[in-house]
Amino acid sequence: MSKNYLMTPGPTPVPENIRHEMAKPIIHHRTKEYQAIFKDVTEGLKKIFKTSNDILTFTSSGTGAMEASIVNVLSPSDKIIVTRGGKFGERFGEIAKAYGVEVIAIDIEWGLSPKPQAISQALKKNPDVKGVYTTLCETSTATVYDIKAIGEIVKGTNALYVVDVISGLGADDFENDAWGVDIAVCGSQKGLMIPPGLAFCSVSPKAWKAVQGSRLPKFYFDFKKYKKAYIDADTPFTSAITLVIGLKKAVETINENGIDNVIGEHQKLAKAFREAVKAIGLSIFSKSPSSAVTAVNAPASIDADNIIKLLKTEFGVTFAGGQEHLKGKIFRCAHMGGINEEYTIESIKALEQALIKLDYGFKAGSGQEAAEKVLLK
Amino acid sequence: MSKNYLMTPGPTPVPENIRHEMAKPIIHHRTKEYQAIFKDVTEGLKKIFKTSNDILTFTSSGTGAMEASIVNVLSPSDKIIVTRGGKFGERFGEIAKAYGVEVIAIDIEWGLSPKPQAISQALKKNPDVKGVYTTLCETSTATVYDIKAIGEIVKGTNALYVVDVISGLGADDFENDAWGVDIAVCGSQKGLMIPPGLAFCSVSPKAWKAVQGSRLPKFYFDFKKYKKAYIDADTPFTSAITLVIGLKKAVETINENGIDNVIGEHQKLAKAFREAVKAIGLSIFSKSPSSAVTAVNAPASIDADNIIKLLKTEFGVTFAGGQEHLKGKIFRCAHMGGINEEYTIESIKALEQALIKLDYGFKAGSGQEAAEKVLLK
Repeated sequence: MSKNYLMTPGPTPVPENIRHEMAKPIIHHRTKEYQAIFKDVTEGLKKIFKTSNDILTFTSSGTGAMEASIVNVLSPSDKIIVTRGGKFGERFGEIAKAYGVEVIAIDIEWGLSPKPQAISQALKKNPDVKGVYTTLCETSTATVYDIKAIGEIVKGTNALYVVDVISGLGADDFENDAWGVDIAVCGSQKGLMIPPGLAFCSVSPKAWKAVQGSRLPKFYFDFKKYKKAYIDADTPFTSAITLVIGLKKAVETINENGIDNVIGEHQKLAKAFREAVKAIGLSIFSKSPSSAVTAVNAPASIDADNIIKLLKTEFGVTFAGGQEHLKGKIFRCAHMGGINEEYTIESIKALEQALIKLDYGFKAGSGQEAAEKVLLK
Repeated sequence: MSKNYLMTPGPTPVPENIRHEMAKPIIHHRTKEYQAIFKDVTEGLKKIFKTSNDILTFTSSGTGAMEASIVNVLSPSDKIIVTRGGKFGERFGEIAKAYGVEVIAIDIEWGLSPKPQAISQALKKNPDVKGVYTTLCETSTATVYDIKAIGEIVKGTNALYVVDVISGLGADDFENDAWGVDIAVCGSQKGLMIPPGLAFCSVSPKAWKAVQGSRLPKFYFDFKKYKKAYIDADTPFTSAITLVIGLKKAVETINENGIDNVIGEHQKLAKAFREAVKAIGLSIFSKSPSSAVTAVNAPASIDADNIIKLLKTEFGVTFAGGQEHLKGKIFRCAHMGGINEEYTIESIKALEQALIKLDYGFKAGSGQEAAEKVLLK
């Protein structure tokens, strides 16, 4: 197999036409030509986020935009609620603590999604809470959270609703405005199918009001600087030009298909993969599986990292492993961005081959058959 | 003229082989393959910086790394000296103020370089100063500062020596260790000739000591997180994979030629351009001209922006304008990164043509002749 199948939950494969677009001679960012591109990107992203709010673009990884969603709307000693059911929920808490913000943690067993009532209770107990920070798809556990239901609860309060959609956008359902999200934080290397290096925050009018009162220090991620430049479709600091040019192509592709169709396709891939895994006799780790990425429990007798290693070295298929206490226990396969039917089927075929080599007993071909059944529908 | 000559001081043209390298299918960053690339980049950068210190790589524009050089080594109410002779010196001061750091400004007329004695006096008057923040090449005025001489002064004090080498590195002489620089801040889109999106900080043992005592809040730019990952040639957050892959090629190209030869070539281009401009009858704005970029005073009768516009629309040559009060007064042409003799000569020819169209009187061809004389030496 000469091809490489990158099935990791970020970066996802970058389609060839997007790579070629980014390989063209570079242009200057303080030009009308670039501003038109930047404007198209922003407008296109709005359709994907389903928002009429501003969307600010940062040159950073997703974590930079997570930090931006904290430092721009809070002040020292403010209280926020953070759902912690994996590595990325935890990160919101770590950033907040680094800035002297008090964290009311709602801890969830890894693989479960938070109960909306838990957030409702925490909000009632702490009416001075300034924000609820949660995650659409907790990548580390491949779990999708009920962002709509949590939104219903936060809506009636003074708290801002901040959602990390970094790996969910474009695969799991998401409606920024309809679900009352004040800040959605995103990155470029997942559903948006370009390389890592760009991050985004949608900012609602309620969030802009909070920006006015915020006293946490910031400069590079200062929303106000981006807003000032935003009016002219410009950035306060040098833009990551080639990535934005690639993103224009990616956003166009997504919007030509329609965001709902794109989500539908990836949900189908996720379902096909889950059915395949079950047919093979393995189980899904998450109790609320995301369509962006699936975490699979390795057979008790096999270290998940051995499966991953074999897939990579012998079949050119790159899965991701488990993080922290899940290392060796699970393997993860993504379904978003540039990942398509071919990638999914080839991964399942390779997974079957790898499991046979590792002496795991199952009916060969059953995974592929189950997946194809879903895909043919 | 079908070609486009990008002569701006960032981004600079990205050579074709580097663009192709970045257009290859993306790989995952948590792999041995990528770690080997990242390690090569870091080691290669050390040769270009002339340092044995750590070099940390951030996904951000240069301003992000400027912020990192402040938040990682200082605490609230600390005092720093900042040289302000242009837009980028001013930026250090703005970032410091945003974080509650007291700024002792050494203001310099735009186009001049700071007098080392002024820094010596400020340090004597303020023995509690924690850092001296200055600039190798102040891009907005195309002025090179005497970083070596200032370094001699800072060396004998407790203050850290922090230098923005964003647009100077690879064109103006710079010796991180020999000149006693504790943190050098750099970006990717200038002398390193890749697209914008990466930024760097070299960090000396003296700076690492200051990191231990720093109480300013940080997360995304936290040196300690990068240091921890650094040991395994890894990054704490998702790396801007394609840009790092491009940088590997760029760094290899520079080091194959030898950094001193690369600097020598760009100094020759800068000299050729300055001689051309003088032969045309125009004058250089800076009293201490950089080899990374040249700022030229427009003829009194012509708005510099009209020259720039004509160059762009009719000749495919992109110069930069003046910033703030220099808007319309100067135009700037870069000499670093992927800019070579062809670019320089074509720019001079186009400049002559544009000036003729704008009814500026001079001996046609004299600029090109003067430049070629320098280049043929």
